Amino acid sequence: MALNIMVAQSGGPTVAINASLAGVISGAKKYFPSAKVFGSINGIEGVLKGKIVSLDSQVDSDEKIMLLKHTPAMALGSCRYKMPTDENDPVYEKIDEIFCRYEIGVFIYIGGNDSMDTVLSLKKYFKNKNREVLVLGVPKTIDNDLLCTDHTPGFGSAAKYIATTMSEIASDCYIYDLDAVTIVEIMGRNAGFLTMAAAIPTFLGEYAPQLVYLPERPVKTEKLVSDIKNALKKDRAVIVAVSEGVKTEDGEYLSAAMPDAFGHRQLSGAAKVLEKIVKTEIGCKVRSIELNTPQRAAAHIASETDIEESFALGERAVLAASEGETGVVSVIKRISDEPYEITIETEAVEGIANLEKKVPDEFINEEGNHVTEAAYRYMAPLIEGERKIVYKNSLPAKFKIDNTKLI
Amino acid sequence: MALNIMVAQSGGPTVAINASLAGVISGAKKYFPSAKVFGSINGIEGVLKGKIVSLDSQVDSDEKIMLLKHTPAMALGSCRYKMPTDENDPVYEKIDEIFCRYEIGVFIYIGGNDSMDTVLSLKKYFKNKNREVLVLGVPKTIDNDLLCTDHTPGFGSAAKYIATTMSEIASDCYIYDLDAVTIVEIMGRNAGFLTMAAAIPTFLGEYAPQLVYLPERPVKTEKLVSDIKNALKKDRAVIVAVSEGVKTEDGEYLSAAMPDAFGHRQLSGAAKVLEKIVKTEIGCKVRSIELNTPQRAAAHIASETDIEESFALGERAVLAASEGETGVVSVIKRISDEPYEITIETEAVEGIANLEKKVPDEFINEEGNHVTEAAYRYMAPLIEGERKIVYKNSLPAKFKIDNTKLI
Repeated sequence: MALNIMVAQSGGPTVAINASLAGVISGAKKYFPSAKVFGSINGIEGVLKGKIVSLDSQVDSDEKIMLLKHTPAMALGSCRYKMPTDENDPVYEKIDEIFCRYEIGVFIYIGGNDSMDTVLSLKKYFKNKNREVLVLGVPKTIDNDLLCTDHTPGFGSAAKYIATTMSEIASDCYIYDLDAVTIVEIMGRNAGFLTMAAAIPTFLGEYAPQLVYLPERPVKTEKLVSDIKNALKKDRAVIVAVSEGVKTEDGEYLSAAMPDAFGHRQLSGAAKVLEKIVKTEIGCKVRSIELNTPQRAAAHIASETDIEESFALGERAVLAASEGETGVVSVIKRISDEPYEITIETEAVEGIANLEKKVPDEFINEEGNHVTEAAYRYMAPLIEGERKIVYKNSLPAKFKIDNTKLI
Repeated sequence: MALNIMVAQSGGPTVAINASLAGVISGAKKYFPSAKVFGSINGIEGVLKGKIVSLDSQVDSDEKIMLLKHTPAMALGSCRYKMPTDENDPVYEKIDEIFCRYEIGVFIYIGGNDSMDTVLSLKKYFKNKNREVLVLGVPKTIDNDLLCTDHTPGFGSAAKYIATTMSEIASDCYIYDLDAVTIVEIMGRNAGFLTMAAAIPTFLGEYAPQLVYLPERPVKTEKLVSDIKNALKKDRAVIVAVSEGVKTEDGEYLSAAMPDAFGHRQLSGAAKVLEKIVKTEIGCKVRSIELNTPQRAAAHIASETDIEESFALGERAVLAASEGETGVVSVIKRISDEPYEITIETEAVEGIANLEKKVPDEFINEEGNHVTEAAYRYMAPLIEGERKIVYKNSLPAKFKIDNTKLI
C-alpha cells in the first residue's frame, strides 16, 4: 500500500474548515509519520488539473498549524464539482493516475453533503478496482444540515458571530424614542439552524429579536404583519430575525415575492421583501440588514469549541485511515448538554452524502415565530470559548498556503 | 453656582460613545466629588420631557464603569433634535426650568456636528441670560468628519471592524478558480474615512480590495468598469470597496442610479448598482455586500486606543468644566504618528458645530481608485489594541442603564 496522503477542501467556506485541514496535517504526523502530505488546490478539480502542493513543506511548524487553525475561508481553495455517475468516465481514471503518481494511499475530503458525494463515488471506484486507496470525509458547513453528526464544524463559530452581532444590532435598535422595526436576514436556504442562533441573546436577557422565522415553518404574510404589530404593542423597537430561506404558505420563498429593479425574481432578499411589507402594512420606521458573508468568514469571533472540534475531526479521519477504514466520515456524537460532552466517531458516508438535516420540531415554538429553550440548550455549548487570537498590525493574523508553488 | 452635572447622548450610535459617558461619570467623581450626576434619556429631548435618571446610583462601581465602556450603542438613548434658532422660544425656558430643578451647573452633550449645534445654542442662551450653566461637548461619530480634532471617538473601532471584516471577506473571495468581483459597501455618505479603512489590509500584504472609491472623488461609470476589467487581468478575485456616498461624474450618488422595484430612487445601495453594472458590462460572477449596522455596533472588536481615548475625552470635558470653561469641546491633537502620541485639549464649539471634514487629498491616490500610504499611517495607530472583553455565556457582557427608573 502506498503511504502518502492527499487532502482537499470543497463547497462553501467556513471559519473552521482550515482547522480541520490543520487537524489532518497534524494527524498525518501522528499516525503516518513517514507519509508525505499533499494538498490539492480547488478540491478534486486540483487533482484533475495536477494542481498539487506539498503541505509538509508549507505547514512545517506548530506556529503555522496554529495560524492555519485561525485562518478563515479555505487555504486550499474550493470547487463545486459533481463526480460523474459512470465509473468508466475518464475522470476516475485521471484521478487514479494522479494518485498513482503521488503514491496516494489515503484521500481525505473536507466538505458538506455535496462534497461527501465525491467521497462516496471515489470510495466505490477504488473498491471496485481493488485499488488500495482509502477515501474518507471530514464534515464542514455553517448550515449545520448534515445527518449522522450532532452538529457540523463551522456552525458553532457562525452561530457565535450571529448571536454576538444580533445582540449588538439589537442594542443599536433601542436608542431612539420611536416605533421601529429592524429585520435581520440570516443565511440558510433550507435549514434554519443559523437563524436559530440569532435567538441566543433572547435566552440571556439581552436585547434580542422578538420574532424568529425559519425555513422549516412556512408563514403567511398576514401572520408576519400581525406578529410584528403585536410585538410593537409591547416594545417600541421590534427586531425580526428571518432566514433567507423563509417560505410563504404556498411553499414559495418569501424572497421570490419581489422582482428586482430589472424585473428578475431574485432569490435573496427575504428581509428586503419583509421591509417593504412592513412599510406598506404598518408604516413605521423599518430597515433591513443582511448579515451576509461575515457569517462564514468572521474568524475573529470564532468559537473555541468549534475550532478545537474541527481540528479533532480532521485528526480523527486520519486515525480512521490508519485503522484501514474507508468510505467513512468523522462525526460528533453528543453525550450530554451540561456538562457538555461529546465523542468523535466515524459513520458511513452513505448516511451523509446528498442528504439534508432540518431543525427538529422541538426547537421551534408552537406559533412558529421563535425558538424554544431546547434549541438554546443545544446551541449554548457550541459557541463556548474564545480563541486567543494572535494580532499582527492590529488585525487577526492569518496563514496563506502558496497555491502557486505546485510540485 | 449649582453644582450638579447633566449628561446626554445624541446622534447616531458608535461603539465608543458609552466609553465617553463612562469618562464623564468618572471625571465627575474626580473633579466634582460632591456633585450629583444625572443622565437625560434620548438626548436633549429627555430634558424637555423630564426623562432624567440618576447615574450616580445606576453606575456605582468600577465594574459597571468598565462594562459601560464596552457596551455598544447608547446607554442613555439618542435623539435627532434641532434647537430653535430663536432664544425666546419656550424650549429654552423649559430646559432652563429643568436645569434649575436639578440644580445643574454643567451640561455635557456627547455627539457629532449636529449635536454640537445644541451645545452652541445652549451656551449662547445661558451666557446671554447670565445663568451660570456651563455647556460642553464631547465628540463622537464613526464617520470621522469633525473638524478641530485629529480623529473622532468611534472611528477607530469602526475602522478596526471594517479592516478585519474586509480582510475576512477578501479571504473568502479567493476560494474558487474563476473570475469573480465582490463589491463591499461601507458607510459614510459625505466623507470617505470609513471606506479608507477597508484599504488597511492592502498595506499589510493581506487579501484586500484592489479598488477603493470614496465620496470625495466622483467617478465615471466607464472608469469603474475599466478599473475592474484591468484588475481582473491581474487577479481572478477582484474586491471593490465602495462608499455608500460615492458619486458619478455629474455629482449624483451612484446609488441614485437605480430605482427600486417600486420605482422609487433609493439612497442606499451603491454596491447593488455597481453589481448590476459589472453583471451587464463584464458578465463575470459578481456579488455585493453591505457592511451595514455592525460598523457602528461591533463592540466585540473595538479598538482599545479608541475606547481609552473616548473615555479620556469624556473625563477631559469635565475637567474643562471644573476650570470654568463653557462652549468648548474636548478634542484630540496628534503629536506624532510613530510613536503614536496625542494630547487632549479643548476647542471652541463654533469650529465644530454643523461643519464637515473630508478626506484630505494626500490620502487619495492620483487615479482616485485607492488610498495612499499616508492614509495608512494616519489610520494604523487608531485601530491599535484589543479590549480584554468580559464574556458572559459566551457573548460579550454589556451594561444596561435602566431608562425607566426616572427620578
